[in-house]
Amino acid sequence: MTRKIEAVARAAVHPETEIIATSSKDGPPSIQGFLDVSTCVPGLLAEVARHPDVDAIVVACFDDTGVDAVRCLTTAPVIGVGEAAYHAAAMISPKFSVITTMSRSLPGLEANLMRYGLDRRCVRVRATDVPVLKLEEMDPGTLDKIRAEVKCAIEQDRAEAIVLGCAGMSDLMTQLSREFGVPVVDGVACAVTFAEALVKANLSTSKSCSYA
Amino acid sequence: MTRKIEAVARAAVHPETEIIATSSKDGPPSIQGFLDVSTCVPGLLAEVARHPDVDAIVVACFDDTGVDAVRCLTTAPVIGVGEAAYHAAAMISPKFSVITTMSRSLPGLEANLMRYGLDRRCVRVRATDVPVLKLEEMDPGTLDKIRAEVKCAIEQDRAEAIVLGCAGMSDLMTQLSREFGVPVVDGVACAVTFAEALVKANLSTSKSCSYA
Amino acid sequence: MTRKIEAVARAAVHPETEIIATSSKDGPPSIQGFLDVSTCVPGLLAEVARHPDVDAIVVACFDDTGVDAVRCLTTAPVIGVGEAAYHAAAMISPKFSVITTMSRSLPGLEANLMRYGLDRRCVRVRATDVPVLKLEEMDPGTLDKIRAEVKCAIEQDRAEAIVLGCAGMSDLMTQLSREFGVPVVDGVACAVTFAEALVKANLSTSKSCSYA
Amino acid sequence: MTRKIEAVARAAVHPETEIIATSSKDGPPSIQGFLDVSTCVPGLLAEVARHPDVDAIVVACFDDTGVDAVRCLTTAPVIGVGEAAYHAAAMISPKFSVITTMSRSLPGLEANLMRYGLDRRCVRVRATDVPVLKLEEMDPGTLDKIRAEVKCAIEQDRAEAIVLGCAGMSDLMTQLSREFGVPVVDGVACAVTFAEALVKANLSTSKSCSYA
Amino acid sequence: MTRKIEAVARAAVHPETEIIATSSKDGPPSIQGFLDVSTCVPGLLAEVARHPDVDAIVVACFDDTGVDAVRCLTTAPVIGVGEAAYHAAAMISPKFSVITTMSRSLPGLEANLMRYGLDRRCVRVRATDVPVLKLEEMDPGTLDKIRAEVKCAIEQDRAEAIVLGCAGMSDLMTQLSREFGVPVVDGVACAVTFAEALVKANLSTSKSCSYA
Amino acid sequence: MTRKIEAVARAAVHPETEIIATSSKDGPPSIQGFLDVSTCVPGLLAEVARHPDVDAIVVACFDDTGVDAVRCLTTAPVIGVGEAAYHAAAMISPKFSVITTMSRSLPGLEANLMRYGLDRRCVRVRATDVPVLKLEEMDPGTLDKIRAEVKCAIEQDRAEAIVLGCAGMSDLMTQLSREFGVPVVDGVACAVTFAEALVKANLSTSKSCSYA
Repeated sequence: MTRKIEAVARAAVHPETEIIATSSKDGPPSIQGFLDVSTCVPGLLAEVARHPDVDAIVVACFDDTGVDAVRCLTTAPVIGVGEAAYHAAAMISPKFSVITTMSRSLPGLEANLMRYGLDRRCVRVRATDVPVLKLEEMDPGTLDKIRAEVKCAIEQDRAEAIVLGCAGMSDLMTQLSREFGVPVVDGVACAVTFAEALVKANLSTSKSCSYA
Repeated sequence: MTRKIEAVARAAVHPETEIIATSSKDGPPSIQGFLDVSTCVPGLLAEVARHPDVDAIVVACFDDTGVDAVRCLTTAPVIGVGEAAYHAAAMISPKFSVITTMSRSLPGLEANLMRYGLDRRCVRVRATDVPVLKLEEMDPGTLDKIRAEVKCAIEQDRAEAIVLGCAGMSDLMTQLSREFGVPVVDGVACAVTFAEALVKANLSTSKSCSYA
Repeated sequence: MTRKIEAVARAAVHPETEIIATSSKDGPPSIQGFLDVSTCVPGLLAEVARHPDVDAIVVACFDDTGVDAVRCLTTAPVIGVGEAAYHAAAMISPKFSVITTMSRSLPGLEANLMRYGLDRRCVRVRATDVPVLKLEEMDPGTLDKIRAEVKCAIEQDRAEAIVLGCAGMSDLMTQLSREFGVPVVDGVACAVTFAEALVKANLSTSKSCSYA
Repeated sequence: MTRKIEAVARAAVHPETEIIATSSKDGPPSIQGFLDVSTCVPGLLAEVARHPDVDAIVVACFDDTGVDAVRCLTTAPVIGVGEAAYHAAAMISPKFSVITTMSRSLPGLEANLMRYGLDRRCVRVRATDVPVLKLEEMDPGTLDKIRAEVKCAIEQDRAEAIVLGCAGMSDLMTQLSREFGVPVVDGVACAVTFAEALVKANLSTSKSCSYA
Repeated sequence: MTRKIEAVARAAVHPETEIIATSSKDGPPSIQGFLDVSTCVPGLLAEVARHPDVDAIVVACFDDTGVDAVRCLTTAPVIGVGEAAYHAAAMISPKFSVITTMSRSLPGLEANLMRYGLDRRCVRVRATDVPVLKLEEMDPGTLDKIRAEVKCAIEQDRAEAIVLGCAGMSDLMTQLSREFGVPVVDGVACAVTFAEALVKANLSTSKSCSYA
Repeated sequence: MTRKIEAVARAAVHPETEIIATSSKDGPPSIQGFLDVSTCVPGLLAEVARHPDVDAIVVACFDDTGVDAVRCLTTAPVIGVGEAAYHAAAMISPKFSVITTMSRSLPGLEANLMRYGLDRRCVRVRATDVPVLKLEEMDPGTLDKIRAEVKCAIEQDRAEAIVLGCAGMSDLMTQLSREFGVPVVDGVACAVTFAEALVKANLSTSKSCSYA
């Protein structure tokens, strides 16, 4: 999955931007629900500490796990892929829905959206109940479940954009967007390009209090 | 002011990005309050129609006037400088305050923040009651008024970033940021770099319903 | 449509109240979505300027287009028909739903409700996808679509009053109210009687800041 | 106080509208805080039952005590003076503050505003801590306390209209409005003219569920 | 019903806690909707006054009728069974739904939830339209209606706990919890054990202002 | 600090309740801000796993760090001391303020309050900027800072109860409550008595989805 994410990131950034794709040395194999979210952060922080000279950091977990903690370690901009996807969706549509993997991730994602304020733009977070690691094989049944939720999001939620709520779904973006006629937003591409944007706009993480 | 905005934009984007800075042929000289907001849109739409081949459009008015209407004219991403500044501030600080020009602009800006959901991250919108056009001369009294509000935002609002709520304040960003030790966000730089980001991430304005 | 609105208004006010029904000399033939909303305001403001001596102004567009801008031109009370309908519905029912014409109007209406605070009383805004101008003919198919949405609003939304979200639906009010056993609120009647009420209560538009 | 309220009401309505001003036979002498609010309702309902043929009912207590219960007894429109004042203030200003009597009434008023949705338009509810019955004498000290709160509301809350949060303050409206240059809203005048408006607009209390 | 409530309360408290179960001498036979809510309070307050020496008071009506008024009469903690159930559900699940009796009670319960802030944790309040007094007989049809709503709450609302919104449903708790595999919360048990908790934690009702 | 917390807990529970006070074997010495919050959870989970047979778990960190993760490990009720204090304060006062240690903890606490819904009852979270470990010595200067914030909370925020936002402040509760005449709420006492309450009310953590 790290390689898949790296490829998506490289394809999105400007040629002069170097991508270092790395993953935590320990921690759970995937992050789904409160338990995984809580236990992966120390490994994430250690990995961040190993790369002190980067210009920006993207946390490529859709739960935006540890993003606030990473911000305490650096002045570089730090962006979660969930956060990036929501901000991007809000700039291209009045209302969006999110399609993620497991139902047990929903309360965490909904809490994030509320904290960001973007629950006001997100109609609903939907789960396919396809486990993250199952996404790697992407058999036809998996794809059908995702497509069924996209359909519901458009027809029932009146969503005008879809956020794919798992870094492992990145490669579906173009296909689903063409099929359903709405923008399909992948957090990895948004996060790396927003990271470039913040760097070019000369913005760094605030160190005046909470992230000091 | 168009030239000032153009310079800020050019300084922020990647070298391969071309900036076309243009302003409406008619409309009010500055946009402050409900009346200006309402009357400038036809001129804005005409100007947009004159440039059909651009990859993205930035509306460089902090009230984000006409942004939704422009989205109905194009599939290219369309970003307002107010909106861009709020999204950026939310990615680098837990809470921000906005410093704008006239008090009569406050209800419009607050309504925008509520619509975007980002009122949950913005502690307060503050007015200096310096008219937009007065900003061009930037005499010491004007600067002092702005600095006084930045101080209040940090001490009273506990803001950890400041959004400069007028395109005409762009050049103060570095100076104020250094003086007060918090990120100072200028919407023009954010909007052009976010526009680049959305283009690189292959995202376009949703045409499925509201912006069709 | 101006004549239809005029008749509804005249039927609702006290005999001593004179109604001047007029429509903008230019502007789009109907107002549906962000683009129409933005381009009709200059014509509206010009029309308002032609009648400087009125005691109150009703903007008879359900999107409440330009209401805040008109308030900047006068001390007389200014009321939009959308706004009036929502306030009235909130006084006679705990929860209401809105039935309007095109889906592309929904985000604008929802933003208005949120700005007024009355989204807390409105369960849902529903679209029939009957174009405004089609309402003038009111063939049986059109009426059926409206009745289907009223039924859903009562059964699914548990709405206890219905707001008809288009000035062109005014004449359906009595018929639908009788058929469904809930109050059906027409904004035109509410707006003209509320305008009378504000005048009798000696209230004028605040000129202390935003509408100065 | 009933006579004072009656005079304000009569001055506001159209000549053909008859006002019946009456007060509960038992119940507390004034209504301030949760205890008074709870004990006055049976007397209010009995009084309402004594006048079955009225076209509309105004509950002239700023806490809107018993308004929902009265709605269960009649199809006529029922309006509380608090509710009426908030709706009126929202139609003539972007933001208002409320000035009421005792601090112990604040949580009740704030809960009402939240239920109506109009907390989004009300910056703050302020108490003078002048007891309701003291208002009848209106000595200079009392007036000074009210004026001090109006001043704070304008300067600190940036309120653009003031709601006088007690039926006993009705006669101050014109004087304060002239002195401070903002509309000052009295609930009694608003409630009776809104009652006339709802009757003329052919609207009655919904009997489909909650008020059945 | 008082005896049923007493039995549930006694079963939940510590052995050294004495339960005095009493009901108002007058007032409506059951409390459903705004009218019952308003008329039962004087009888409730009289009953409270008859027991001045209790350590805590539980108001065993799911509408939390008169709870704030009772707080004005005593320094002892006062807890409504609705309130208690919502707080408990929020401590054992991320999201809950409420199942109550009549539809006409819904607006009152929703207003309570909003005032408590716990509407953010409650997905939906559902009515079975089984009258309170019908619950006493609990025939199979009644039980089926309740079970149908529990099922919808779990499947459609994604509720992870169920609050039984009527004191008369207390004895169903264990049965439904086992059948559906989610915690089923009864307000009576929660309110008496929370009352014990507040007493042991040395907390009393604040008398500094609103409840003075 | 663990001993201090243990003493407070023991004093609050019923005699038959056994308290096991333990602290994480590793992790930061105190928890203040995002970084500490993120790194202490694995140690907390390990400690929880060492005590599989407890009837309920209290997480005695005012940030409620890891509470949701612990809920995934057990069916026993799990309560954070922050959460417990907010729920208790909401049952004895209409509005409360929180006094905590460091400013950098504020965004985390505010996010918790919003997630619980209880931000609607909390006027403000205030920091004394006394470090947690400094509380242990509790010199006069420290106490004065806490008292100054309590005074502001009562006078400026109109708070009718105070929540002490740090487990290390528990022993100040009685003293401050007497001095200021408002209830002062300590989370440790509330959490252990609420844990007893949930156990007696037969409630366990929902395992149907998020905490499965």
